Amino acid sequence: MYEFSMTLGDKENLYEQIYKYIKGEMLEGTLKPGERLPSTRVLSQSLGVSRSTVDLAYQQLLSEGYISSIPAKGYFVSDMEIFAYAGGEKEEILLEKEEAQKKPVVDFSLTKIDEDGFPHSYWKKISKKILDIEDENLYDLGDCRGELSLRKSITDYLHRFRQVNCHPNQIVIGAGNDYLAMLLSVLLREEKYMAMENPTYKSAADTFVCMGLQVQGIAMDESGMDIDTLMKSEAKVAYVMPSHQFPMGCVMPIKRRIELLDWAKRKNGYIIEDDYDSQFRYRGKPIPALQGLDDQERVIYLGTFSKSIAPAIRFSYMVLPKSLLERWNAIRESFSVTISKVDQKIIEEFLSSGWYERHVNKMRNKYRQKRNLVLGAMKEWNFPYSVSGEEAGLHFVLHLPFIKSKKDLLFTLKEAGIILYAPEEYLLSSKTYNEEDFLLGYASLREKEIGEQIADLGKKIEAFY
Amino acid sequence: MYEFSMTLGDKENLYEQIYKYIKGEMLEGTLKPGERLPSTRVLSQSLGVSRSTVDLAYQQLLSEGYISSIPAKGYFVSDMEIFAYAGGEKEEILLEKEEAQKKPVVDFSLTKIDEDGFPHSYWKKISKKILDIEDENLYDLGDCRGELSLRKSITDYLHRFRQVNCHPNQIVIGAGNDYLAMLLSVLLREEKYMAMENPTYKSAADTFVCMGLQVQGIAMDESGMDIDTLMKSEAKVAYVMPSHQFPMGCVMPIKRRIELLDWAKRKNGYIIEDDYDSQFRYRGKPIPALQGLDDQERVIYLGTFSKSIAPAIRFSYMVLPKSLLERWNAIRESFSVTISKVDQKIIEEFLSSGWYERHVNKMRNKYRQKRNLVLGAMKEWNFPYSVSGEEAGLHFVLHLPFIKSKKDLLFTLKEAGIILYAPEEYLLSSKTYNEEDFLLGYASLREKEIGEQIADLGKKIEAFY
Repeated sequence: MYEFSMTLGDKENLYEQIYKYIKGEMLEGTLKPGERLPSTRVLSQSLGVSRSTVDLAYQQLLSEGYISSIPAKGYFVSDMEIFAYAGGEKEEILLEKEEAQKKPVVDFSLTKIDEDGFPHSYWKKISKKILDIEDENLYDLGDCRGELSLRKSITDYLHRFRQVNCHPNQIVIGAGNDYLAMLLSVLLREEKYMAMENPTYKSAADTFVCMGLQVQGIAMDESGMDIDTLMKSEAKVAYVMPSHQFPMGCVMPIKRRIELLDWAKRKNGYIIEDDYDSQFRYRGKPIPALQGLDDQERVIYLGTFSKSIAPAIRFSYMVLPKSLLERWNAIRESFSVTISKVDQKIIEEFLSSGWYERHVNKMRNKYRQKRNLVLGAMKEWNFPYSVSGEEAGLHFVLHLPFIKSKKDLLFTLKEAGIILYAPEEYLLSSKTYNEEDFLLGYASLREKEIGEQIADLGKKIEAFY
Repeated sequence: MYEFSMTLGDKENLYEQIYKYIKGEMLEGTLKPGERLPSTRVLSQSLGVSRSTVDLAYQQLLSEGYISSIPAKGYFVSDMEIFAYAGGEKEEILLEKEEAQKKPVVDFSLTKIDEDGFPHSYWKKISKKILDIEDENLYDLGDCRGELSLRKSITDYLHRFRQVNCHPNQIVIGAGNDYLAMLLSVLLREEKYMAMENPTYKSAADTFVCMGLQVQGIAMDESGMDIDTLMKSEAKVAYVMPSHQFPMGCVMPIKRRIELLDWAKRKNGYIIEDDYDSQFRYRGKPIPALQGLDDQERVIYLGTFSKSIAPAIRFSYMVLPKSLLERWNAIRESFSVTISKVDQKIIEEFLSSGWYERHVNKMRNKYRQKRNLVLGAMKEWNFPYSVSGEEAGLHFVLHLPFIKSKKDLLFTLKEAGIILYAPEEYLLSSKTYNEEDFLLGYASLREKEIGEQIADLGKKIEAFY
């Protein structure tokens, strides 16, 4: 029989020391398959520890399958051919260098929002209030679509502010638009093709492609997706942003909306209406959602709080048309809710208290002011330019007719720490786009710096005329 | 030219009243396509409102495309064929009746956890601390894998407690296991088949199927997935729960683990190790993760805080093997993070402060006590029974040899408000399973009620002998 020659360390975790020692001996091959271990009585005496300590070590080896027990005979090393796998720690290798990016001086970002706009104190107050609630169901998993009371609040909000008509059971919440795009890809798998404006919100296109759908870029004009091109495509689903197209900023007029609904009706297809920044319209009131015009149950409405509260608030929702509910109900239990009940309660409170509405109004005014500061400062520019899509959203298209070299200008700006964007980055196909169009986002700029930043931008652009 | 005959209501939203009136006239056909609207000057005089009010209404109609403007000529109703779509509110119909379920008296649930176990006061304290931090990046979107500092904390935790070896860049966090199963389905699409033990965690199987993978049920014995059957299947990915198989409760011994790793190496395949409740082991220390034995970069490790903190905490993570990082890095930007930075910071604090470890230890003791109370009360039963899988997790298998009719027993229990479970519910194929096996979860029972509940269950079972 195998002889033990281990020395115990300090008094801590005696059983673990024995367990590790035996396992080590097996891995090194000193203890061989089939070999019998000393009885717990013998080993406890030889090591000067209690019998239960040895028993604990043996039980652990037993439960992991390293040894087996034969009644009235004792413990034996398990019969295993390969021990080589059980290696020690692997070296820690850096798999990818975290890029130490030079922070730009001015970023006319299309995705960042006003960083002072986050309702810190209110968020804290509401969070605390929710956490104080004695609700034994608050830490259950809950409904995969989101809690009913929250879905009711969203229904009310959508009805009042977006003229969206729906029942709470048509609503599904999810942790961000990308997640909902994943769910939609599952729901719309049999439709196979997805038509998207070109250029478009590329992250959604990427998600659809990753999810196995085929994305078809459809030409667009100043009213949005071109219906003739759409008609000729194989797509039965069209993804559009009627309130404020990303990135071109155009609004889909009522005529095009009706043509699109007509297309969906004829094709028995679906329209995904991404209403991502519809709250921010600076002239008149927000344009009602396309969903409200749909009496054929063909529109899937997508909304998010990431633009209006903060990108880190991972909260989006969709309204499914009744025609898709059967499909959804058949699979929905496979997709647990992705937002905690605490966060759901916070958003519900935001909506039902009227706070959200006030916050959106406040931010709309703030963004309008920033936009006005930008447009005002641009009036000092001494070269031809024009803007479009500036009546809504958090960015606009800047047209610089006859600019010498777009590529060189963007490069020169970048070298100077100024990040300006271009629609090409959002193209689905790689053909070049208008040489004169640029995208300028102003949401994350600071009011008092805008004048100087726009003047500086102007100077840099002027050199290219 | 069209004559206005509108009467203004109160002084509120004058422009909106004008806007709505004109839109209404168009929808009713009183105002026809091509018809010219009165000028802003004329209309403002006739209504007795300021010219800018009328202008605002016209601008809104213009931006929505209902009218168009011809310079020096005026405003004209747009040329649209169909107005019929623009209906009013749809009737609110209840799409699905919310079932008023009779609440069971005793639910031996396999998924619920101890409802008093949620660390309410600590959660509140940490949440408040995080919300008090002045961090301008806290409301940015952040890294799609989760913040680096959090991934470091998870790496440390996994290394210390689960013997998992990885680099923070191998970690991806997500709002729940279902979400990570979706991501994995995208990553493993080309592998096409997914082998799962039968019975298994069916929700994951459903997700894989919804995501387009083909799930193949593999027979299992008391060591887990049968390797010979796996060898013969087409699958290149195997989903297993080595620490505590759901629902059968068995632990995969080291020999089977090595055989499985060997299979993955030969097939160039992958193993998904779902380590969902490994923290709860009542005898000896938790069994190290399979991932720690993998020197071929074939194991995908899945962990969650839903079992150890609360199901409503939608927080899971996975460790990708280095062999999958190239695939992941190519697509990861299409999948924004699904957990807010605030929640990420809370979990990071939980892990790095050592609080999580103490919480798990506390809960392990609590669950051990509940399990002991259940097993102790069962000793009073006057009929043959045995249990297995009771050394870990939050449920065990109850064997009732020669019981008369499993189906009738379950039905009788249900009628009396007692919910007991059976492995059949977790079978991938519908062939019947062992007539004698039941599943009993004890995590959500209350200590002081356990004695009576188990005695009552015993009485009901006895009638079937």
